Amino acid sequence: MIERTPEQHAEKMKKKQAAHDKIMATKTQEKGLLIVHTGKGKGKTTAALGMVVRAIGHGKKVGVVQFVKGAMTTGEKAVFDAFRDHVTFKPMGEGFTWNTQDKTRDIALAREAWEEVKRMIADPAYAMVLADELNIVLRYDYLPVDEVVAAVTDRDEMKHVIITGRNAPEALMEAADLVTEMTLIKHPFRSGVKAQAGIEY
Amino acid sequence: MIERTPEQHAEKMKKKQAAHDKIMATKTQEKGLLIVHTGKGKGKTTAALGMVVRAIGHGKKVGVVQFVKGAMTTGEKAVFDAFRDHVTFKPMGEGFTWNTQDKTRDIALAREAWEEVKRMIADPAYAMVLADELNIVLRYDYLPVDEVVAAVTDRDEMKHVIITGRNAPEALMEAADLVTEMTLIKHPFRSGVKAQAGIEY
Repeated sequence: MIERTPEQHAEKMKKKQAAHDKIMATKTQEKGLLIVHTGKGKGKTTAALGMVVRAIGHGKKVGVVQFVKGAMTTGEKAVFDAFRDHVTFKPMGEGFTWNTQDKTRDIALAREAWEEVKRMIADPAYAMVLADELNIVLRYDYLPVDEVVAAVTDRDEMKHVIITGRNAPEALMEAADLVTEMTLIKHPFRSGVKAQAGIEY
Repeated sequence: MIERTPEQHAEKMKKKQAAHDKIMATKTQEKGLLIVHTGKGKGKTTAALGMVVRAIGHGKKVGVVQFVKGAMTTGEKAVFDAFRDHVTFKPMGEGFTWNTQDKTRDIALAREAWEEVKRMIADPAYAMVLADELNIVLRYDYLPVDEVVAAVTDRDEMKHVIITGRNAPEALMEAADLVTEMTLIKHPFRSGVKAQAGIEY
């Protein structure tokens, strides 16, 4: 820590504020964002659902399609249930992959979930669409990446689309406006702690 | 993508399920977690507030102390207002640092916010305490890291504490159960897009 006099500190902070204001003044464009949360760390779905909370708090309508079971937890569901008019929640990932052990059925399920995402993207009622864990089914080649990238690129320019899941395809990250990678530094599961209410679900 | 017959696929997925179940069976411990969200990427506060949503959805009580202005957005506030009995929200960071340009006052504000966090940690009514952007004031040396680490380490063993902000101190990460780093891969601000309702606030 560099020691500064109160006057030096005030001067430095004043400059910082001015620099910040100057940058912000150049940010004038409003547009729908394509947002990708990827990486092996936690928080991809949680941060996406946090954005859903923000959007519904602004009175916007949000569509959520869950490609993998359990992405929307019982805890979140209880809260979103209080805002039923603002959130359409489609848990499409029941019984996926390692549960079904039936690849043909899994591909059909992925297709069905994806068609729902496309319907929501095309529906002007939705300001935001969250395709939760879509990256997982892309990783398994259950859906063509090209088709997904084309659909999310060719959306209404004010619509926000959020896609989560590890191993986001390169083409999707290239098309995105905002990509955040969640990196696992330390995880309590490694030391025998189980999933707990309010944390994992 | 490796091509497998449906039978090979079923066999592989069955093994995956069994391996997953075996690992989960060893996770039996329940305990309060010290969770740190750091890194330069987005989603640190959003994912923490997502955990707050989960916890209140389970009927738990959560305390949120905001060390830097604007961490709780108007969007989230509207949603949390519907769950007033479950969330105590203390926005302590009004007029911090580059706004005040008054270091002495900033340190006093940081102290006040921290004392509130300590009160909430000590209060059995709270199942979870979020010290949002606490890392920022630690980074500026407005609070002693040792004091913070000692207080969060010496808490009730079932209490969850979440601390967010870039540049988490090493000692805090060492004390934590779960550390996630949010890494910025791509950001729309760089291309002139302004902060938007439902995304940044």
